[in-house]
Amino acid sequence: MPHHADPAMQECITACLDCYSTCTSMAMNHCLMLGGEHVAKDHFTLMMACAEICRTSAHFMLIGSPHHKHTCAECAEICEQCADDCERLGDMDDCVAACRACAESCRRMAA
Amino acid sequence: MPHHADPAMQECITACLDCYSTCTSMAMNHCLMLGGEHVAKDHFTLMMACAEICRTSAHFMLIGSPHHKHTCAECAEICEQCADDCERLGDMDDCVAACRACAESCRRMAA
Amino acid sequence: MPHHADPAMQECITACLDCYSTCTSMAMNHCLMLGGEHVAKDHFTLMMACAEICRTSAHFMLIGSPHHKHTCAECAEICEQCADDCERLGDMDDCVAACRACAESCRRMAA
Amino acid sequence: MPHHADPAMQECITACLDCYSTCTSMAMNHCLMLGGEHVAKDHFTLMMACAEICRTSAHFMLIGSPHHKHTCAECAEICEQCADDCERLGDMDDCVAACRACAESCRRMAA
Repeated sequence: MPHHADPAMQECITACLDCYSTCTSMAMNHCLMLGGEHVAKDHFTLMMACAEICRTSAHFMLIGSPHHKHTCAECAEICEQCADDCERLGDMDDCVAACRACAESCRRMAA
Repeated sequence: MPHHADPAMQECITACLDCYSTCTSMAMNHCLMLGGEHVAKDHFTLMMACAEICRTSAHFMLIGSPHHKHTCAECAEICEQCADDCERLGDMDDCVAACRACAESCRRMAA
Repeated sequence: MPHHADPAMQECITACLDCYSTCTSMAMNHCLMLGGEHVAKDHFTLMMACAEICRTSAHFMLIGSPHHKHTCAECAEICEQCADDCERLGDMDDCVAACRACAESCRRMAA
Repeated sequence: MPHHADPAMQECITACLDCYSTCTSMAMNHCLMLGGEHVAKDHFTLMMACAEICRTSAHFMLIGSPHHKHTCAECAEICEQCADDCERLGDMDDCVAACRACAESCRRMAA
């Protein structure tokens, strides 16, 4: 794990990579298998957007860029929306949990 | 090229991918070869951050996410900083041009 | 555009980024809109795998890594499979064309 | 963590994301700070290539693509080279460990 990062940042990198993993895996396996509302354009795109901004925010922290504050702020916003949408659909508990945890960690990092 | 995107968005995707390509290539070849100030932590990290946010902004437009406005706003800001820093160092004309063009296109997309 | 790359490599970078753009855009917009077979797990995953390996192969060429030969070989294989699968489904002409062009360019680069 | 993946694949995803994190962080912070041989073109590019193929291999497993076997095979090869080069330079123990662990896990996944 990255030395240059203090414990709060290390925890945020972990939360981002975990949320990236969960969103990508659930969208591309669980949602594609279930079909119906789970592959509706808006929901599916939100999950993939969430995966991408998490991957990017982790990257900004890993490269040691001060702009990570801005990517983390955006990440927190998208994660909250994704958690809400997954909650609405149901049957997406792991995704809801990963998104809420990442949103909270990213908000602290962005402050 | 993406059908779902109107001409302004298509042009912005192209500008982002061109800036991503130029920053990545110049940092990882030109700057590593020259050494000295070109591999100073702050400059090199700014170039890699610029490459990453350009790649991400293109991705948000390609997946058709409404959050592309936020990634494009951040992209415009980082591109301007990268252009300024490359101008200061000198010998980075292609990077300055790609960053300025991408910043302008992203500002319009973010509006 | 990258200086360090000779014209053949520059053309391959362009082909990879174009195929990445087309596959991502068509999967996440066209296929999600059409539904049915277009969002079947195997087809949709193949399109996203194709997008990712194209993005990665372009990156390996841009950073000037000798391992680009291996990523380009894998890229050529996935692009051909994606082109075949899009041809079978129909209504995916732009994707077929981008995948065939990228496969051909990557095969030359891998040789 | 991804449900669709069996325990061996889950462990390989974790190893890939850990190696991606360590290589990216050490190259962009430790190596840029130390300078000298640590920012030599060949070494630095190998570290960034290693980070990228790890990120990509994790992605292929997360999206549930059968092509993950090929990306994991390439990942194992690049990780071993990166571990060797970091060992030669010295002062890169965390990177050596993350690369060796990822190489071993990816070799099993590719088999």
